[in-house]
Parts: sequence; structure tokens; C-alpha cells
Amino acid sequence: MAPFCYADAPARASVIMQLKTLLGERLITAQAVRDQHGQGEDSYGCKAPDAVVMVRSTEEVAQVLALCHQYAMPVIPYGAGSSVEGHLMALEGGISLDLSEMNQVLEIHAEDLDCRVQAGVTREALNQALRYDGIFFPIDPGANASIGGMVSTRASGTNAVRYGTMLENVIGLTVVTPEGRIIKTGGRARKSSAGYDLTHLYTGSEGTLGVITEIQLRLHPIPDTIKAATCQFDDLQSAVDTVISVMQCAIPIARIELLNELQMKACISYSKLEGFEPKTTLFFEFHGTVASVAEQVELVEELAASMGGSAFSWAESTEARNALWKARHQAYFAGLSLQPGASVLTTDVCVPVSRLAEAVLFAEQEAVASGLSCPIVGHVGDGNFHVLILQDENDAEQQARGKALSKAIVAKALELEGTCTGEHGIGYGKKGYLLEEHGEAVDLMRSLKRALDPKGIMNPGKIFDL
Amino acid sequence: MAPFCYADAPARASVIMQLKTLLGERLITAQAVRDQHGQGEDSYGCKAPDAVVMVRSTEEVAQVLALCHQYAMPVIPYGAGSSVEGHLMALEGGISLDLSEMNQVLEIHAEDLDCRVQAGVTREALNQALRYDGIFFPIDPGANASIGGMVSTRASGTNAVRYGTMLENVIGLTVVTPEGRIIKTGGRARKSSAGYDLTHLYTGSEGTLGVITEIQLRLHPIPDTIKAATCQFDDLQSAVDTVISVMQCAIPIARIELLNELQMKACISYSKLEGFEPKTTLFFEFHGTVASVAEQVELVEELAASMGGSAFSWAESTEARNALWKARHQAYFAGLSLQPGASVLTTDVCVPVSRLAEAVLFAEQEAVASGLSCPIVGHVGDGNFHVLILQDENDAEQQARGKALSKAIVAKALELEGTCTGEHGIGYGKKGYLLEEHGEAVDLMRSLKRALDPKGIMNPGKIFDL
Repeated sequence: MAPFCYADAPARASVIMQLKTLLGERLITAQAVRDQHGQGEDSYGCKAPDAVVMVRSTEEVAQVLALCHQYAMPVIPYGAGSSVEGHLMALEGGISLDLSEMNQVLEIHAEDLDCRVQAGVTREALNQALRYDGIFFPIDPGANASIGGMVSTRASGTNAVRYGTMLENVIGLTVVTPEGRIIKTGGRARKSSAGYDLTHLYTGSEGTLGVITEIQLRLHPIPDTIKAATCQFDDLQSAVDTVISVMQCAIPIARIELLNELQMKACISYSKLEGFEPKTTLFFEFHGTVASVAEQVELVEELAASMGGSAFSWAESTEARNALWKARHQAYFAGLSLQPGASVLTTDVCVPVSRLAEAVLFAEQEAVASGLSCPIVGHVGDGNFHVLILQDENDAEQQARGKALSKAIVAKALELEGTCTGEHGIGYGKKGYLLEEHGEAVDLMRSLKRALDPKGIMNPGKIFDL
Repeated sequence: MAPFCYADAPARASVIMQLKTLLGERLITAQAVRDQHGQGEDSYGCKAPDAVVMVRSTEEVAQVLALCHQYAMPVIPYGAGSSVEGHLMALEGGISLDLSEMNQVLEIHAEDLDCRVQAGVTREALNQALRYDGIFFPIDPGANASIGGMVSTRASGTNAVRYGTMLENVIGLTVVTPEGRIIKTGGRARKSSAGYDLTHLYTGSEGTLGVITEIQLRLHPIPDTIKAATCQFDDLQSAVDTVISVMQCAIPIARIELLNELQMKACISYSKLEGFEPKTTLFFEFHGTVASVAEQVELVEELAASMGGSAFSWAESTEARNALWKARHQAYFAGLSLQPGASVLTTDVCVPVSRLAEAVLFAEQEAVASGLSCPIVGHVGDGNFHVLILQDENDAEQQARGKALSKAIVAKALELEGTCTGEHGIGYGKKGYLLEEHGEAVDLMRSLKRALDPKGIMNPGKIFDL
């Protein structure tokens, strides 16, 4: 599989010794730490790196990479460890480059709605730092991911329907190339036509082209008015039809999330949600001026009612709103609680909004037919939803059924002109789907990889095989 | 300069003969047609290609490229010929690949707010095709450019402040690689994390990595309410301060354009604008629901008045609005009319909005000091403005002064964390500025170019030298 010739055992030992000299106690070879760095929040299993390094500056990253490049030692960037696609597995061993101590917010330009952060800053820490400026960073994938990790997977989440994804909100980067060169891409202007768009080539490159150490981000003013509500439906189709109508009316809603019956059942129990029935539910959030929120709410309530939705239940206080979104963020763990000890395979398809009903209904039917327990949750305003396929990790037959289900859901999404991953990335687990989706374009991606990382040291075995 | 070995004269003759067999009369060698294809709307002069081909399908483009690749024959894609940065100059001769007959709107998905067009469709033709669906394509660079050309320069224009640039509105492409392979990038889903972002690598690549033949675009609903107004100021500073305040309040204005005193003088005379004084003027356009436009207008009028702006003059009817924006679109030609026969050097800097006053005031002062006639016009909501430097093309001393002025304006913009080009691209004329702005990152761009176009046939001599 690997056409590259990586460092042999003595070379690895030499790299580790030199890193020890460079970083002292911040070079770690303890098994527990290596194991912890060899996997994310997924069920692909652990592949521990040979060592973990805790870096503190772009210059240190450059030193580490220059050394690893010299010896052809693999390097796997590590942020908050919240990947769900096996990104952190050290398939060829190597160094896990932990950026979590690069956690400084470097610049806040409230007047221009942008900021510059180190890659290890988490989205919650960033919003904490912004709280006195009346501005916020809207991208919210649920997990308290690092900004560097979010750039690397082109993350999005609940607010993307209004504020866009990392694609629209990353405006510049500091990147260390595999050879250890430090380069800056993009800038602070709201737009630029100056040369190739390296910023967006690195956005979504999943640590395979270099290490992102700093990020310039677009920010947004905290809206005057925020209102959150839920609405329950007797069936999945009516809920999805409501979403399609809202999006086709181009209502600038901030969040519109779907939880199917099984997912709601799990959330009610896991997050102690009160006043809900275990029925398909939409979670809404509206941002804007008083007048604009009032307009949005009126339209959406009308559309939901016409599809048979319940009256809106409002989360009036900030506390109630936070409780609601906390439950939404815990949906993954709530889902897991349906089958304690189960491993989970997550789909992440995204389809054009007009095809959403077809995609979601197909997924639920196939899930039921599979006999597996499969809660469904989604950022449906973008056409993106996740089927959490729960399976006994010691039961090969269940695993095969789970894999077949995932495959069928992806095949359907591609048939509907969608994508196999809306926000999680390809990682280790979806390489086959990337080929199905992009065909010959994957050859071009390989050419770019070979041009920028000729020794193949950056996160080997992810996105595609070479 | 060119490290590539391009086709010699007999090889060129052979390519042209084979293209004649393939395309018949759509292979053109008439001098007038070659001259017309060897330059854009700029003053860099004409470099005619060896021949022009009029292609009609992606497959034909692939055939032409495969042949040109075999013989190392340069290829320069041609859309509507509206480049202002020398993109069309056949610096090494070769084939001008004219895509203007690939002018079909292939799919309109009003329900998902996207469409697919051939690269030769112009933005006006696209909006004509969309007119019955209540949707539109907002990017408006002024010229009736082709969509393929707009992708290639990452164009924007007057509406970008609300709707973004081509970066935010291109979601997928069909590209023919320099070897003649047809690949598809991106897709119709509102977001995807599937692999490297080839779509945005090609967006802004100025024809140097392949030929874009089809484009999937995001569309937008035509707003319920559109209101346009102008406001005049006694000095440039007050006008720019108004812009900065509007943007810092994050008012979702659709257009906010600045014309300085000299530019207004030219427009009043050239476009027969009535009721205006030759004073610094802002052109505004507001999009939204009735309530939201009313809110925006109230805020902006208040801000402008507090800076000493005149009462708003409203363009109430669609005709009045069109006349206003026609005048804005003609600003370039109005500027030229100030000095008949002059050649023009256009700056295109873009700075963070908070630095806009410093950048524009510096530009105007330097322009006055240069003694050259230099109207200023800009998409100031984005921090982007153009100084049209008029100079006698037979006066070397004037040209030197013009070049020094342009250099000073760019240097100032870079000092203010801006970019040398907001929307025109680097082309032939701004290669030196790209190096100043992006330094080592340009080496990475060169690596990508060499990986995707190993023989260097695509639009040689543009963006950077190899």
C-alpha cells in the first residue's frame, strides 16, 4: 500500500533522541500517552505513534518537521482528538505532533471582524476570548474541537446554514511544509485575487500536506436577538419537508437540526430533556434584529404548522437555550447510550436540500431493515445528516451489516448528487467512498500530495492511498 | 525566463494543421482575429497567438489540449476578453482557446439555488436565463465577463459585500487538465469535506492549471425589496469614514461604492448623470424584506448624516436604478475620457476595512502629487478600490511616474495588511507584487503548477515566472 520508504527502527530511535534533546520532557514515549494519541472519538481502533511531541511555536513545528523529513519519519498532527474518521491513527508509526499547547488567541480585530489564533485554540476558548467584543466565531461542530483540526477537516456543524463552513470563514493560514518551511497564505483583506488559493487547499487537507499552526478567521457580530425553539412531528417526512420549505424560501435561519424518533428517545433519557415526546423533532435557532427574527419566526411557524408540526416550544432564557443545545451536542453520546459498549460507525452524507427527504427516508428505512439500532441526527438546513450505526464490536456479522448499511446510504447520496462527507472528512474510513464520488479527480489530488510532500511523511494513509 | 521548451515552428505548423482537420473553420489564423485575442481591456499591449480555436464542447477542449500537450504548444483560454491584467497576451505564442461559443446554461435548480453553466456564458446572459425563476447570480464585476473568466480571476465587484466573491459562489467545476483529461470537482451539496478542494484551487488560477469548461454556481433569491441611493460628501475622508462605520455595524448592505471627486466629474459628463455635483459620492444598494431594508436604510442614513453626508438621493424606479448602476459600470470608460488617447494603469488594492481611510487618502494624495490624472472608484465595502492612472503612452517619463505611483499604492496596501489585487488577478502586470505579498508561498504555487502542468503549456508567463 505505502509506496514510500519510511524510517527504519534505528532511524526512528535517532529522531526520537534528537527530539528529546530539542524538546526535553515535551517528547513523550509513555505507552498511555501514545495510545491516547493514536485514536479519536471513532471506532476504527488505536494505532499508537512512536512518540508524542508537545510543540509550543511555529518555529518548533518547523524544527520537528525538518528533522522528520530528513529521516522520512511520519508525522500526524493532533489537536483536540475529536476526529471521528480515524485521522489520528499512526498507520506507519511516527510522531504525533500535539498542538494543544499552542493555544493563544494572537490578535482580535473586532473592527474588521477577524482574528488570528494558534491552531490549538478550541472553539469554546476562542468564543470565551471574544466575549467582551460583541463578536463570535459561529462554526460549531458540537465537540470542543481545536481550530486547527476544524480547518483540517473543513468542519461545519449547527450554525453553517447561516454562517457557512470553515471554507467561508478561514481567510489565512500559517503552514509548516513537510520540509519544515514556514509559509503564510491568504491575509486580512476581505477578498484577494493574488495567486493560487493555498488557504483553501490546506483547508480540508486533513494533515496530509503540512501542519497548520496559525489561522486567520472571519468573525461575526453577536446578533441583537437570538431565539430558539423546537417543533415535533408525527413522521420523518413532514419534518424534512418543513426543512426543505424553509431553505427554499431562503429564510436566513441560523440553525435547523433534525433528530429522528430514536435519537429523541435517546436524548430525552440521556440529557434529561423535559416536555418532549419521543418523536421526530426539529431544533431551530433564529438570529437577527428584533424585526428580522420576528419575520423569520412567523414564516417558519407557518410552514411547520402547514406540515403538521406541533406548536413551537420556546427556549426563552439563555439557560434554557443552552440546555437545549447541550442536549443536541450530546446527541452522539446519547445515541451510544442506547447500546452500552457498542462501537459506532457514523455516516456523514450531504445532499442538495431538495433531495433531502429521499435521502433521509431511505436511510431510516434501510436502518430499520438492517435490524441495527441507528439514531439519526442532522444539520438538515445544509442537507447533511448522520446515521449513528451501533454495532457490537465482537460481532462480525453485525459489523458487516453496519458496513453494508453505510455503503447503501452513501450510494444513495451520490445518486442524489450529494457527497459522502459533509463535514467529518475522509480520514481512514471513507477512502473508498472518495473514489466513488470523485473518480479521476482523486488522481489530481495525488499529484498535489506528491508535489507538496514528496516523502509522504504527512499523515500517511489518510484521504487516499498513493 | 521560460524554463520550458515550447514547440518550434514546424511543430506549431503541424498542430495548426491538425486543429484545422479537427475544427475546420473554427480554427482561425486571420491576423485581425489573432490580434483581437492577444489582449484584453488593458494597456499591456497585444501579443497575438499563432491561431485561435472556437471550441464547442468539453470533449473538443480535451482533444485540443491533448494535441497541444503532445507538441508543447502554449494554450491561452479566452472568455469575453475583459481582463485588465494582460491575461490574454500570448507571450510564447500558441493557441487562444476561445470558449465564447460554449454558452449554454445547462441546468437550473431553482429549488436548491444552484445552476450549471458552460464557461462561455456571460453573467448577463445567465441572469437573463434565470429571470423567470425569481433567482439571480449576484457577482457583478461591471464588465459583461464570461463566468469562466470570472472563476479564473476569482472576480467579485459591486455585490460582493453582501453575496461574497466567486470564492463563495463557485461550488463545482469541470476542468480539462493540460494533458487533456476531463475531471469534475466539487458538487451540488451545500458543503463537502471530501478530499482536497480542487474547486478553489482552480478558482483564481488564471488559466494556468487547465481549462475550466463548466461551472456549478450558487444562486440567490431576488430580494423582495431593492432600494438604491446616493449620498455626496465634501471630502473623501468623511465618505470613507461612513463606509467604515456601515461595515463595522455589520449592516447587510448589498452594494456600497465610492467615486472620488475626479471620477464623479468624469461620470457626470460621460454618463450624463443629472442632479449631482462633482464631489466624492457613495452609491448604495439595499436588498431584503421591506422591514429589513427599512432598518438598513435608517441606520445608514443616520451614519452618513453624522459624517456630514448630503441627504440621500433615491433612485426609485427600476429605470432610475439601472441608470445609476450603468453610470457606475461605465466609470472606467468615463475615467478614460478625461484624457482621450491615454493608456491606463489600474490599481486594485484591497485592505482591511478599518485601514481603508488611510489607504484611500494616501492614494489620492500620491495621485495628486504625481501630476497624473487619476480618478478613484471602489467597492469600498470590501476595502477594495481602483486608481485609474491615466498616462500618455508615448511619454516614457509619464509612464515611469504612473508605475511609481502604482508601486507606492501597493506598498501602502501591503503595509496595511492588504493585498495587491482584490479582484483583477495577477496576470502579466502584477507578478512582482505577488512576490512582495506572498514571498515563500509563491514557491509552493510554483510546485503546484509544475505538478499539474509539467510542460508549462497553460497560459505561460502569468501569475509568476517559473
